[in-house]
Amino acid sequence: MKFGNMITKQWKISNKVFQNDRKILSIWLSLRKCSKSTNCFSGLTETLIELCQNRQLLSGDNITQDMLVNGYFNYGHLGMELKRNLVTNWWDSMVLSREQVFGVQSPHQLKGNQNSDNKSMKLVDVATLQVPLDKQDVNGEGIFSLKDRLKEYIVLRPNLLQGAFCEYTKSLNLVNRKLPFGLAEVGVCYQPIAAPEYSTVFNAGRTAEVELASLVWFSSPRTSGSWLDYWVRQRLLWWRKFAKSPSSFTASDSQNNYGIKGTTLYFSFPWGKEPIETLVNLGDKDLLREHHGNKSSLQGRDGRKTVIPYVLSMSGNLDRGVIAFLFDSLQLTEKVDSKSRTNQKKVLKLHPFLAPYKVALDTGKGPTVELRQVCEGLLRELLDKRITVWPGYLETMHLSMEQLAIKYDEMGVIFTIVVSETTLENGLIYLRNRDTTVKEMVHISEVRDFLTKYIQEF
Amino acid sequence: MKFGNMITKQWKISNKVFQNDRKILSIWLSLRKCSKSTNCFSGLTETLIELCQNRQLLSGDNITQDMLVNGYFNYGHLGMELKRNLVTNWWDSMVLSREQVFGVQSPHQLKGNQNSDNKSMKLVDVATLQVPLDKQDVNGEGIFSLKDRLKEYIVLRPNLLQGAFCEYTKSLNLVNRKLPFGLAEVGVCYQPIAAPEYSTVFNAGRTAEVELASLVWFSSPRTSGSWLDYWVRQRLLWWRKFAKSPSSFTASDSQNNYGIKGTTLYFSFPWGKEPIETLVNLGDKDLLREHHGNKSSLQGRDGRKTVIPYVLSMSGNLDRGVIAFLFDSLQLTEKVDSKSRTNQKKVLKLHPFLAPYKVALDTGKGPTVELRQVCEGLLRELLDKRITVWPGYLETMHLSMEQLAIKYDEMGVIFTIVVSETTLENGLIYLRNRDTTVKEMVHISEVRDFLTKYIQEF
Repeated sequence: MKFGNMITKQWKISNKVFQNDRKILSIWLSLRKCSKSTNCFSGLTETLIELCQNRQLLSGDNITQDMLVNGYFNYGHLGMELKRNLVTNWWDSMVLSREQVFGVQSPHQLKGNQNSDNKSMKLVDVATLQVPLDKQDVNGEGIFSLKDRLKEYIVLRPNLLQGAFCEYTKSLNLVNRKLPFGLAEVGVCYQPIAAPEYSTVFNAGRTAEVELASLVWFSSPRTSGSWLDYWVRQRLLWWRKFAKSPSSFTASDSQNNYGIKGTTLYFSFPWGKEPIETLVNLGDKDLLREHHGNKSSLQGRDGRKTVIPYVLSMSGNLDRGVIAFLFDSLQLTEKVDSKSRTNQKKVLKLHPFLAPYKVALDTGKGPTVELRQVCEGLLRELLDKRITVWPGYLETMHLSMEQLAIKYDEMGVIFTIVVSETTLENGLIYLRNRDTTVKEMVHISEVRDFLTKYIQEF
Repeated sequence: MKFGNMITKQWKISNKVFQNDRKILSIWLSLRKCSKSTNCFSGLTETLIELCQNRQLLSGDNITQDMLVNGYFNYGHLGMELKRNLVTNWWDSMVLSREQVFGVQSPHQLKGNQNSDNKSMKLVDVATLQVPLDKQDVNGEGIFSLKDRLKEYIVLRPNLLQGAFCEYTKSLNLVNRKLPFGLAEVGVCYQPIAAPEYSTVFNAGRTAEVELASLVWFSSPRTSGSWLDYWVRQRLLWWRKFAKSPSSFTASDSQNNYGIKGTTLYFSFPWGKEPIETLVNLGDKDLLREHHGNKSSLQGRDGRKTVIPYVLSMSGNLDRGVIAFLFDSLQLTEKVDSKSRTNQKKVLKLHPFLAPYKVALDTGKGPTVELRQVCEGLLRELLDKRITVWPGYLETMHLSMEQLAIKYDEMGVIFTIVVSETTLENGLIYLRNRDTTVKEMVHISEVRDFLTKYIQEF
């Protein structure tokens, strides 16, 4: 089959399937809408957690809904790749494709101790605590020395704001003091553990750490309002771009603990809406405080005027983002098999950009050594095109086509390729599409270009 | 000029220049060889630090040699991009292009507290300390409660080994228990601050944190020796691949504090060799300890045999790697100008894969608005090809061609493009190559393909 035809065919089928998808979606949405008092949600959550544990998306036992929300879970190998893809896409969209946004990498610790309060996590070198503690056993002075020590310990960043503030003046020089511009960073931050969960999750895995993606945008006060509108639209579009149900991502006006107004972006989880990103207009106070009110060094140019910029801060929670896309992509359908038993079919319909593996490569019937050689050659070709491939052919236990489909659908793999003795005879391989479930025979020489084009089209 | 010719010409010149480079290199090497008792090294280090501060590679004042070695410095915007490129290349080379290596992402905190000793950094929620501390003022019991609290605080990882150990059994299932395979991770680790520097660097910026790139390789005991040899070669080749003077990277047998033998890779800094990566064969002890001696869950297949794997751990220090490549790429030449004054010309000859910006885009004489439009179009074209572009045209202060060359050579930018009124007339742009210093006029329609091909050729 010719290459162009193949793509057209896939599209046509995609469309048909999409209509089926809509039906399924509406069932699913109605499922989600069913009242919170019933237990139907927990079923969906449990199904997802089980799938994620089986398929190496999340790691660890006893994962609960609370742990998903707070990011107190560990990533499995596939989950880690999914998060990597999310980070890469954020960076591409927010930094690489914008000439006025620059990446920064700030230390995990805050500068100075002036920000130290009781709502922060501190980094403590245990050895240095030993002296005051031991001293205490002998006399009563150690405790004061200990208090002093704790005051001077390193405070870990709760968010990425200070990093951008510190780099502001240098970056202002980079752009010849011209506003607006932005500073972007993706990194781990440390937030105190919410009290109720403290005891239960203490040894669960990742606690207190969260990976944030932050853009701090410096613009003239006069334009900061319209920039906030612009960024709310941009950010909402970004989240929706990868979603199967874009409307699960919504925006609402909000106000934080300090009374600062802004917009919060939410994802509708089965148990209700949870924030995934906040956008606020901080004005110029924080920037001035960070630079001790040194106005002249902060002044940027807005056309011919000189101004102290207003600061827009947008901060997305990538760990919660991963969980959001896992829920968004999970499609459940009831399937009646030949023996009239009802099975639940689970597919992770992750966006091609996010899917940890785009292709799985397996072998069917035929001479093992030769088929593996074919697989290795094809793997190399696909990796060269930066298409991630799951090397299923390394498994020695053979699975039927149906079993392969179940496995790879649950892993969110978009295409399954099976090389068999037919391939050795006439060069044809078996190719299955996760979303259309269409299976076809394709010549091995056409696979690479077809897949590259298919994945890029999104 | 035709596209193919252009590349050939650039290569020919590149070769000639490379011979000149060799001369410069030998001068530079002899400079580096000059005895440690003289001060000639500190000159080179100071020059590099100054350049890095001016050109946004490193950030912060009073950077010293000690801070460079220990990673107690902050990244500037360009330094951050350089490190990003190093991480990307490590990942491409160690994970994406190998079917038996899987990425993991482990929590920053160690599991359980059994590993807690005085040589670790702990994460402390300050609020929870307040109660025992306050209590202490009233009666004498608080201190014991405080000691207990400190015991149970979260220990931060000093390296990435535990993360791989925890994921081992699940990954073993992924590959159907077949050895060998590897688990890779890049991430921040926390190492106690070396005592002498403690007071001076305390508020300098990044202390105690270091970014490591780790591959933990599980193989049968019988093959672990030859695998260690294989990985030493691979890792040395990888570091050398990006170096102007590959021989600055060397390998020596070494032994760590616990008596475990292995190989350490070094870079020759002006002040002497410093380790940048260590490779050790840990045997099976640590893995068994981590899994409480549960042998059956650890057994993998080596052909037809079932074995507990030996663990090879390789761990590279990426922050020190960045500093190594900055020293490696710095080329200093004396230049006598028209008024017989001697100037020092500084070029950061970073490998094209590592250079933070591949291209700088500037405007010369001509109508500002139109030239900017041309620049923006070209920028978009290059960004689409994932070529990073420095938007020099955003600067309103015009620099002469010579000033531009100095600036971009110090930033390590490989190509400088200048769009001027000539471009509006006949489509020709000015193109300068950092390494050859060749300037030529090229048609704007050919630039994108030429640059893409040039950068990919490396």
